[in-house]
Amino acid sequence: MTVKIELPDNTKYDINIESLKQIKLDTKVVVVTNPTISALHLDYVMQHIQAKEVSVVTVPDGEEYKNMETIDMILTHCFEKRLDRKSVLIAFGGGVIGDMTGFAASMYQRGIDFMQIPTTLLSQVDASVGGKTGVNNKFGKNLIGAFHQPIEVNIDPYFLSTLPKREFAAGVAEIVKMAVTFNKDFFEWLEQNDLNSEENIKTAIAKSVETKAWVVSQDEKEKGIRAALNYGHTFGHVIENETKYSTYLHGEAVGIGMVMANELAVKVGMMSAQEAQRIKTLLEKYDIPTDYEIKDVEDFYEHFFLDKKSMDNKIKFILPKHIGDCEITDAIEKERVMDVLKGFAH
Amino acid sequence: MTVKIELPDNTKYDINIESLKQIKLDTKVVVVTNPTISALHLDYVMQHIQAKEVSVVTVPDGEEYKNMETIDMILTHCFEKRLDRKSVLIAFGGGVIGDMTGFAASMYQRGIDFMQIPTTLLSQVDASVGGKTGVNNKFGKNLIGAFHQPIEVNIDPYFLSTLPKREFAAGVAEIVKMAVTFNKDFFEWLEQNDLNSEENIKTAIAKSVETKAWVVSQDEKEKGIRAALNYGHTFGHVIENETKYSTYLHGEAVGIGMVMANELAVKVGMMSAQEAQRIKTLLEKYDIPTDYEIKDVEDFYEHFFLDKKSMDNKIKFILPKHIGDCEITDAIEKERVMDVLKGFAH
Repeated sequence: MTVKIELPDNTKYDINIESLKQIKLDTKVVVVTNPTISALHLDYVMQHIQAKEVSVVTVPDGEEYKNMETIDMILTHCFEKRLDRKSVLIAFGGGVIGDMTGFAASMYQRGIDFMQIPTTLLSQVDASVGGKTGVNNKFGKNLIGAFHQPIEVNIDPYFLSTLPKREFAAGVAEIVKMAVTFNKDFFEWLEQNDLNSEENIKTAIAKSVETKAWVVSQDEKEKGIRAALNYGHTFGHVIENETKYSTYLHGEAVGIGMVMANELAVKVGMMSAQEAQRIKTLLEKYDIPTDYEIKDVEDFYEHFFLDKKSMDNKIKFILPKHIGDCEITDAIEKERVMDVLKGFAH
Repeated sequence: MTVKIELPDNTKYDINIESLKQIKLDTKVVVVTNPTISALHLDYVMQHIQAKEVSVVTVPDGEEYKNMETIDMILTHCFEKRLDRKSVLIAFGGGVIGDMTGFAASMYQRGIDFMQIPTTLLSQVDASVGGKTGVNNKFGKNLIGAFHQPIEVNIDPYFLSTLPKREFAAGVAEIVKMAVTFNKDFFEWLEQNDLNSEENIKTAIAKSVETKAWVVSQDEKEKGIRAALNYGHTFGHVIENETKYSTYLHGEAVGIGMVMANELAVKVGMMSAQEAQRIKTLLEKYDIPTDYEIKDVEDFYEHFFLDKKSMDNKIKFILPKHIGDCEITDAIEKERVMDVLKGFAH
């Protein structure tokens, strides 16, 4: 099946959720990937690409390499292959590969096209939609980047067959996030259906992509409702930062972050404790972590201010009012937040 | 006077050609400048900026520092000052400062606003219009960058009072370029009027900016006629590259490049020798260099292929048919080009 994306600035592209079709490009192509995914599936993908010239650049695997040095490595490869302004980069891997490939494409000769072939559940449902690209630096996550839309996204569920169980669960966390923020019916469907079935995961990917596509088309540059997609991220980013991106997968940190956000929402009287519990139960069903030990609550709180969504000395929280309906607010008192944090300082 | 820019994607901004007015911004502001311009005019500019918080980052002066390291320096300053998504960068200096400030603004938190206060004639007539930002790398000039439009450009002719004569002439070269490529009447006006008069230079800046603004509004992403603005640049970039950006100012290299392009245009029967001479005479009137000694013509030719406009194994030349009317062509035989190059291998 295909989800059609259309943005306010007239950018249009397709997200195909199906077995990979033949990709035909009358240009030079560079496939950006990492050693892990390359070992498993590069042959399969290469058989599906026809282009003037195809080369592969393999970058180190992991969030800790999502930085300007790796961007430089990708760009150097492109210059050595003499890519021109019509050339196309193909991101073949998870969210880190997608974010870096898109950012490199955005700046090579002031912008060339790129295509996504996301291989993790997380990147299939989340990172491949919306055009957010970028890298981390010592100040935090995704602080440097560009908005750059792909020309096409090809989501082949086949890649999930080799995905570690933990990474699958991390992807489910983002699916749950999408449902809680925008779609009550989808949430109820998730409570009733097991995503370990192939048919169900396809449906869930499509529903997530459609939901995100709708949000992004309303708000490409994140000036309004798109910020709600950061539900779970305000807390999640601090957790990732504190644990130096090495303990939790992004989706896992977001999972914990959603539980923290829910507790805050309950604490300020926004959401019922019962709804918060339903969300937690769904996360636990997929063994998504929901607990985290905060060592220093003051330090944790201070870390919020390094997040780019809250540099204006205000912290922006995305809190559910109900399942399927969120509020973006920067008017939460520090005391209420500290109450929640203290609950995690076992 | 004010030139109003309106781009196809609805971006709008003003270019003010007049004494600097009070700049009022209800945000944090970072002024990016270099030691040379800072020593001369920073106090003057700071007196004209009112904002929530203003800080200054001074980066090394010169084309050789137009690289990712300097971008990193600017970004680090912005992170340390905790700029948020509403903050504004102000480029205060010549084209190098403008290109780097714009590029840094394009990627800080995936894009924040920036304003231009260009201080050299070259950046006033050329670099401050069009949204091209970027840096050089070991493969060539401006090969990494972004299209990012300023929110406002303030051209204060006062800064020209301290501009070295050579830099003034380099700016005139770009003015001549604008006239030859698009505006015959303007060229004739230039033949008849001395740009050393303050009134005339204002008029020339306004005419250049208007011409470029019209071209850019037709073709923001340089898919068509905007490429004609690279007249003189195909040769000029090679000259800059061969001389490691240390012998000629950019405008000077473009001056020589225009003479080379004209000789090629004459050689292939496109332009009359008489019109080529008129252009050369105008350049010489301002002591703009028109000659260059090519040491190795084969090597010079090879260098064309490292230019980003010609990576597809074809060299794109912008050649005048008449003054005020150019043609973009990639169908010039190597032999004809070599004939011209040999003429410069004294």
